[in-house]
Amino acid sequence: MTSATLIGSLAAIITTSSLFPQVVKTIKTKNTKSISLLMYSFFLIGVILWLIYGLLLHNWPIILANSVTVCTSLIILTLKIKHG
Amino acid sequence: MTSATLIGSLAAIITTSSLFPQVVKTIKTKNTKSISLLMYSFFLIGVILWLIYGLLLHNWPIILANSVTVCTSLIILTLKIKHG
Repeated sequence: MTSATLIGSLAAIITTSSLFPQVVKTIKTKNTKSISLLMYSFFLIGVILWLIYGLLLHNWPIILANSVTVCTSLIILTLKIKHG
Repeated sequence: MTSATLIGSLAAIITTSSLFPQVVKTIKTKNTKSISLLMYSFFLIGVILWLIYGLLLHNWPIILANSVTVCTSLIILTLKIKHG
C-alpha cells in the first residue's frame, strides 16, 4: 500500500465515521435547532450522487463509504424534519 | 465527458457547497447547541487528510473541493468552540 492510498483510506474512514457522533447526539437530545436543514438536504443529494458514481465505476471503497453516509445523513435529516 | 465523470463532478460540487448554509445559519444565529463538536473535529481531520491525498496525487478536483471544505468546516468548528 502506498502512503497516498493509506492517507486516502484513513481520510475516507474518518470522514465517513464523523457523522456518527452527530447521529448519537441528535437521537439523545432530540435538539436539532442549530442544524441546517438546507445543509443536510444538499449533503444527502450529493452523497447519493457519490454512491451512483461509485456504482458506475464499480469502485467498492466509494460505494461502501457513501452507503454508510447516505444512512447517517438520512437519519440526521429525518430527525431535523421531525424536531424542527 | 462521460456520464460517470458528470455525476462525480456534480456530487463533488453539491457536497462541497452543502456546508455553506450551515456556515450562514451559524454566523446569523450564533446558536451551535445541537451541532456535534466531535463530528466537526473528526470531519476536519478527515478533510485535511483528503487534501493531503489530493496533493500527493496532484489531483486538482480533490485539492479544490477539500480546500473549500477545510475552510467551511473550520469556521463551523470555531463557532462551535466559541458558542458551545
